[in-house]
Amino acid sequence: MKINTNLATLPAGYLFAEIAKRVKEYAAKNPDADILRLGIGDVTRPLVPAVVDALKKAADEMGTPEGFHGYGPDFGYDFLINAIIDADYTPRGVKIDFDEVFVSDGAKSDVGNLQELFGADASIAVTDPVYPVYVDSNAMAGRLGQYVNGKWTKLTYLPCNAENGFVPPLPDKRVDVVYLCYPNNPTGTVLTKAQLKKFVDWALENDALIVYDAAYKAFITDPEIPLSIYEIPGAKQCAMECCSFSKTAGFTGTRCAYTIVPKELVFDGVSLNRIWGRRQATKFNGVSYPIQRAAAAVYSPEGMKQNQANIDYYHANAKVIREGLQSAGIRVFGGVHAPYIWMKTPNNMPSWDFFDLLLTQAHVVGTPGEGFGPAGEGYFRLTAFNTLEKTKEAVNRIIRIL
Amino acid sequence: MKINTNLATLPAGYLFAEIAKRVKEYAAKNPDADILRLGIGDVTRPLVPAVVDALKKAADEMGTPEGFHGYGPDFGYDFLINAIIDADYTPRGVKIDFDEVFVSDGAKSDVGNLQELFGADASIAVTDPVYPVYVDSNAMAGRLGQYVNGKWTKLTYLPCNAENGFVPPLPDKRVDVVYLCYPNNPTGTVLTKAQLKKFVDWALENDALIVYDAAYKAFITDPEIPLSIYEIPGAKQCAMECCSFSKTAGFTGTRCAYTIVPKELVFDGVSLNRIWGRRQATKFNGVSYPIQRAAAAVYSPEGMKQNQANIDYYHANAKVIREGLQSAGIRVFGGVHAPYIWMKTPNNMPSWDFFDLLLTQAHVVGTPGEGFGPAGEGYFRLTAFNTLEKTKEAVNRIIRIL
Repeated sequence: MKINTNLATLPAGYLFAEIAKRVKEYAAKNPDADILRLGIGDVTRPLVPAVVDALKKAADEMGTPEGFHGYGPDFGYDFLINAIIDADYTPRGVKIDFDEVFVSDGAKSDVGNLQELFGADASIAVTDPVYPVYVDSNAMAGRLGQYVNGKWTKLTYLPCNAENGFVPPLPDKRVDVVYLCYPNNPTGTVLTKAQLKKFVDWALENDALIVYDAAYKAFITDPEIPLSIYEIPGAKQCAMECCSFSKTAGFTGTRCAYTIVPKELVFDGVSLNRIWGRRQATKFNGVSYPIQRAAAAVYSPEGMKQNQANIDYYHANAKVIREGLQSAGIRVFGGVHAPYIWMKTPNNMPSWDFFDLLLTQAHVVGTPGEGFGPAGEGYFRLTAFNTLEKTKEAVNRIIRIL
Repeated sequence: MKINTNLATLPAGYLFAEIAKRVKEYAAKNPDADILRLGIGDVTRPLVPAVVDALKKAADEMGTPEGFHGYGPDFGYDFLINAIIDADYTPRGVKIDFDEVFVSDGAKSDVGNLQELFGADASIAVTDPVYPVYVDSNAMAGRLGQYVNGKWTKLTYLPCNAENGFVPPLPDKRVDVVYLCYPNNPTGTVLTKAQLKKFVDWALENDALIVYDAAYKAFITDPEIPLSIYEIPGAKQCAMECCSFSKTAGFTGTRCAYTIVPKELVFDGVSLNRIWGRRQATKFNGVSYPIQRAAAAVYSPEGMKQNQANIDYYHANAKVIREGLQSAGIRVFGGVHAPYIWMKTPNNMPSWDFFDLLLTQAHVVGTPGEGFGPAGEGYFRLTAFNTLEKTKEAVNRIIRIL
């Protein structure tokens, strides 16, 4: 049987699997170690009451002949799609049509699957460091060439570092697709409208597509920072946008997300909206009805208020990390409009060494920057997704060993 | 931007979308028509109490700090995987290991995505008629050549018809992958162990893979009919198996499924278990925790009993259709170990013509056999997924216009 060799030869494991493995091995050998996890970007606050109530109500409905729902609309129920448009786009002056919204089980699924829209020889650019799914999903499809010395030969890297203020340069050659994630995972940094406009203008000039991952937009506190790429004129002609309830409403274990594919997005006469619909209708069967009801409750007045309290909680944690590390002389970035703090490793220590040091000496788990790409070397990611108490304790432990 | 031309040029819409469109148009012009739906294979009985209770309990858990679950294990929670193995495999004498079970949001997702394991030039065979997702997902990946006169030039069709008793012939040339679905969608027919063994032996001899879709196994009533392909010796070396809670427990709108990828499944030294895990860990983020709890409740003693009552209900409907049509001189197949009845159209009428006739004259919706492949022409699928009353009424209306 002929195997997908691109998939079979993909290097190493998924970053977080490797971290989980190292932590598990350390914990097994040191059962008394009180390990504090500021590694994976997973929320810790419970679902808010408005969401729990909606989920239970929908569960009850599903148990009655009148309220039962079988297969739903492939791209999401009206009540959820309309709530998304009314709350996330209309107030920002962005017009999104009903049939431009595709509800899914997760932004990871969408950003992983949407490369199926691209030709086998499409050229790709990513910021560096980067969320690994953009890279791995294209590597599996054979678009990235060979993996040599930690880099894919056909992938264009847009390095983001302290020197350029984590603002990616435009690609220095034409590419078909650029992935952008703002607020950024892993660096926690954002782009202003002016900075994002440069990418939109570049994409329009170059007949290129921007995949815009806005999974962390709920953390933006400055009204001048764009919540959506569609706040930039022309973006509907060049960008898809992936959003999620995971970080907005603590849905990492509940699973709901949505992707916007504007009808203006046409390349070589082919509508991406049409072919993404075809892809989803063929290989996906919609999101669970109770889960869509739970997601819609995120937009209720109570849901909005209750979830904002959780976001505020994580923001307070981020501040503790940012200011604690700064007070110890560490250079830190992000953590203002994002739940991620991106720190320089002390003395430019290799990031996996720093990972092991923190795990074994401070019993704190973070994410080595190198796991996010070559330009992440010498950096380290900490997340604001723990309790305030444990976050404070983790910062104290880190400072103590530096 | 370079487009996936295989996706962009895929012919026509998805079968059920076309049916929905025709029904919607007819209903709009005839608002008083009482349309009875025996078309799409969607369950109608509510979720059973054991499942609703588990879903609500998990929702409550998610609202507490102690009970909250963020990202789950990529491939499913222990409690669900163990329940699957203990209930669906161990009693049949089949040994499945914990890390051979991959829980997902749906069998449609799995059967659509698993072709990513195959090389770009892998050769594919399907039974004809066939569930369209096997074909469309491979066409999108460019494996099937051109679509000419209703057939893909590089796809091997294994015709199943009244003449061969709906038992597919072995491929007459070597292929890399054969998709088999039993109990069959759309024909409702089954294979005996001896018939299935021929395919397993053929696959082992030819270093080929069988993708076995067992989504309808809950409808099997004869203990001699295999519930799993792994009841056939050697199948763990040549077969993946996709199963679902959709039909077993009415989860079409609740979304949970699982796929078995045995560790013995190795081609060219590559473990399909390993690379499917890599695929899923990269492009999927697990099934909602409350939904997995609901799925696990399917295996509780109450869940088993309550769901069996629903299966019995659908079986009774199938009997009404089968015997009603037979009494009117129609040749019918399936409907014994499956919720599908596969009927010959009267006077060999083209199946879309018969669809339109039934819709407009009897106000009954079924599925034209031709929509499932060339060998489905002259046949028509009816489903047992309506109420008993409406099923009786539909059969009476069909008989009246014949």
